Amino acid sequence: MKYLNQQEAISIDEELFNEYKFSVDQLMELAGLSCAHVIADAYAPESNKILICCGPGNNGGDGLVAARHLALMNYNPYVYYPKRTEKELFRNLQHQAESMGITVTTDCPDGASVEQEFGLIVDALFGFSFKPPVRDSFLPIMNVLQRSKLPIVSIDIPSGWNVEEGPQNECDIQPACLISLTAPKLCAKRLLNAQHYLGGRFVPKRLEEKYSLELPSYLGSNLFVKLN
Amino acid sequence: MKYLNQQEAISIDEELFNEYKFSVDQLMELAGLSCAHVIADAYAPESNKILICCGPGNNGGDGLVAARHLALMNYNPYVYYPKRTEKELFRNLQHQAESMGITVTTDCPDGASVEQEFGLIVDALFGFSFKPPVRDSFLPIMNVLQRSKLPIVSIDIPSGWNVEEGPQNECDIQPACLISLTAPKLCAKRLLNAQHYLGGRFVPKRLEEKYSLELPSYLGSNLFVKLN
Repeated sequence: MKYLNQQEAISIDEELFNEYKFSVDQLMELAGLSCAHVIADAYAPESNKILICCGPGNNGGDGLVAARHLALMNYNPYVYYPKRTEKELFRNLQHQAESMGITVTTDCPDGASVEQEFGLIVDALFGFSFKPPVRDSFLPIMNVLQRSKLPIVSIDIPSGWNVEEGPQNECDIQPACLISLTAPKLCAKRLLNAQHYLGGRFVPKRLEEKYSLELPSYLGSNLFVKLN
Repeated sequence: MKYLNQQEAISIDEELFNEYKFSVDQLMELAGLSCAHVIADAYAPESNKILICCGPGNNGGDGLVAARHLALMNYNPYVYYPKRTEKELFRNLQHQAESMGITVTTDCPDGASVEQEFGLIVDALFGFSFKPPVRDSFLPIMNVLQRSKLPIVSIDIPSGWNVEEGPQNECDIQPACLISLTAPKLCAKRLLNAQHYLGGRFVPKRLEEKYSLELPSYLGSNLFVKLN
């Protein structure tokens, strides 16, 4: 299986939209749903809430979708979504989550209450197009994640990591679980003792071959593959 | 569990789009994916092709989405889609299916070759907004379906049936499997020896309560419930 560099990840993404004519709505729904299925595979529902941290771009959109599906599966998601866009899709994703009774807040939770109230953190802050450094407004939540003892599930990229090189500092987060979408990026080779899943079962065979992705086989109708 | 009349089905659909702000792209993707998962649950992949008959509206769109996911799950779908719309979503759904190597044709297959080449028929012709009679251009395919000995999987409504009253004529199709989406419609009470599934796991609790749907529980992360 191939591990993508940043430019390959960007090119594949563009090709899915421009050549294969998928809409962002479609692929974000499938990606976020596969994330919810991975979380259900790796973590049983419990009384503690799941803190889902959503960034300003598509990675955050995947998090908003996952939150909605997790609520339908009897998990208790709580969304921190500080930096909103005016794009209709994102406003709608937020509205859908709130209409399901999910709190979506711009208030950064403090570290102590996170450890007390939550059982799991989903990191949907930055995705494959991230370039350091982290913007100032995201430093408080990055700080919470870096100090937390809770398991962190990162969507596509552990936030703050260089997409190709992995962690940049000793304090960078080490997720307990990474969900690579479409195909893993090079930084996934730098995971330490993490569960690694592949989600986003929508890649056309022809695209897989063009980029020599050599994706593993999804079993039956599963929306994810466990890679380790 | 409640069985909906036609007006309730239409109202719930409108509410999902207007109040909950789902896009058609999102819900069609989830509905079509759940149909593919039901088919994978009920019918193992085999060498024979699956004939997916897609009508001009959203029921046909669900069929186009299901075809794509079935191809990803190693089934061999073949789509008859005679009456196309200029809506971008539908043009894109067709393009996505064709880009996956799926044939999408406007040529009505003849009865003899259907029995020979196919192992299963998916009826995605008409949905819950259907009002008889069937338009002339769909009579040839309706005829093929009515005479076929192959198992038919109907999406949401067995095509040609009255949404509330069921079959209208002795020759009306009797599906081997019905996939009710969101909630079953009244005509589902008129099934004979059919497997009955519920798909479309996206209904907000508040909407379920407003319409007293009393939906059964989806198990784990399953996208469908088997109702019998």
